[in-house]
Amino acid sequence: MNATQIDRARIESLVRRAIAGGLGTSSASRPDIGLSHDPPGWVDGKPNLRVSISARHVHLTDEHVEILFGAGSVLEPDKDLYQDGFYAAKQTVMIVGPRRRMLPSVRVLGPTRGASQVELAFTDSISLGIDAPVRHSGHIDGTPGCVLVGPVGSVQLEQGVIWAARHVHMNYFDADHFGVSNGDMMQLKVTSHECTTVFDDVLVRADEAAKLEVHIDTDEGNACFLDGASKVELTKGGCGCHQ
Amino acid sequence: MNATQIDRARIESLVRRAIAGGLGTSSASRPDIGLSHDPPGWVDGKPNLRVSISARHVHLTDEHVEILFGAGSVLEPDKDLYQDGFYAAKQTVMIVGPRRRMLPSVRVLGPTRGASQVELAFTDSISLGIDAPVRHSGHIDGTPGCVLVGPVGSVQLEQGVIWAARHVHMNYFDADHFGVSNGDMMQLKVTSHECTTVFDDVLVRADEAAKLEVHIDTDEGNACFLDGASKVELTKGGCGCHQ
Repeated sequence: MNATQIDRARIESLVRRAIAGGLGTSSASRPDIGLSHDPPGWVDGKPNLRVSISARHVHLTDEHVEILFGAGSVLEPDKDLYQDGFYAAKQTVMIVGPRRRMLPSVRVLGPTRGASQVELAFTDSISLGIDAPVRHSGHIDGTPGCVLVGPVGSVQLEQGVIWAARHVHMNYFDADHFGVSNGDMMQLKVTSHECTTVFDDVLVRADEAAKLEVHIDTDEGNACFLDGASKVELTKGGCGCHQ
Repeated sequence: MNATQIDRARIESLVRRAIAGGLGTSSASRPDIGLSHDPPGWVDGKPNLRVSISARHVHLTDEHVEILFGAGSVLEPDKDLYQDGFYAAKQTVMIVGPRRRMLPSVRVLGPTRGASQVELAFTDSISLGIDAPVRHSGHIDGTPGCVLVGPVGSVQLEQGVIWAARHVHMNYFDADHFGVSNGDMMQLKVTSHECTTVFDDVLVRADEAAKLEVHIDTDEGNACFLDGASKVELTKGGCGCHQ
């Protein structure tokens, strides 16, 4: 999607919301309309930040699902993700790297995509012996490949193994709230006892339907002890230190 | 060591250096004295920051060395660490957690200490199934234990397994340079392509002989891709963002 397309999609979204009566006023100032008109994921008339650890996972094409799990197979949703329409599938695959090192059971996320992709944390890439570059989802040109092994068949991926870069999903109302646009970089501060950490380079991925959610990988989540964090803050500029 | 002791040690150190002619002037402004009078680790008359990943490791008492490796055994230095007098030993031990999960080969660091201690990253503690708290070295009261297994014997540690907290070793000249004291907290900014990260809560551990070196664990090193970093900055206040 180029900049022109982004602007058009965003404008269309804003116009639709304006027609629906939801633009420019928070739910708190329009009690007659009610919370049902809040943008996706908002609570009490404002964005509700969620920070999630995105563990290693695989995206598959329809074709690869059939090769790995058998002709006619489709992904079977097991657990819904926070983003509407996305799910962890019941299926897992084995990922085999060079030198026959492997991860035996990596979760497949749905729905299927136009290109298969393996998203690892740096620790995982070391385990596998794959020198995966830091990339954002979908940007897999020139990345290393691997072998995917399922219960029925296997697939040789020529490319698609990435070290997933930090990003934040949000809708255009969230983007307006923070004063950012799709493609901007933000900062996430995670306050934890004795290991408070600020993550720069959090890419904004804005679309119409997303709910505000930062995705960091397991290494990042472990470095800041996200599970024990007392506060998370997402900011436009600087580093979240509010100096 | 309390505040009074710290001050006394520091004053003694500064006085000794003053008598030796090295205090208050950089080597650049006293070419007649030369680099040999620089504080430990300084290069070209100023602190030379090193950031190291401190992988999981074990400290042992003399008694435990003999139990694990045989009567009369001592630690055998294999590789010197950056801090003078410290080394990675040739010896390794197996660490066994509850539910019989284990790490087969964890390096012992020397010299020996008054209490044995296991330092893990969070990822390691998950692997072992040990809920290790974030602690600074030596602060092991109330921490979980584990079993250490060597080639000759084994030791049941009642406590001593910690998730090693970030810290920076430095000498008193480094501390003066940064305007900090032993026990203060600093910030480390690691600039890496698409994963720049600021680590708060970096504890200052100042003594007379240390060289300026930040220790972070493997999770932290992987979260910021330390190996590929283009810049590291240590700052006294704020977060290193220089806003």
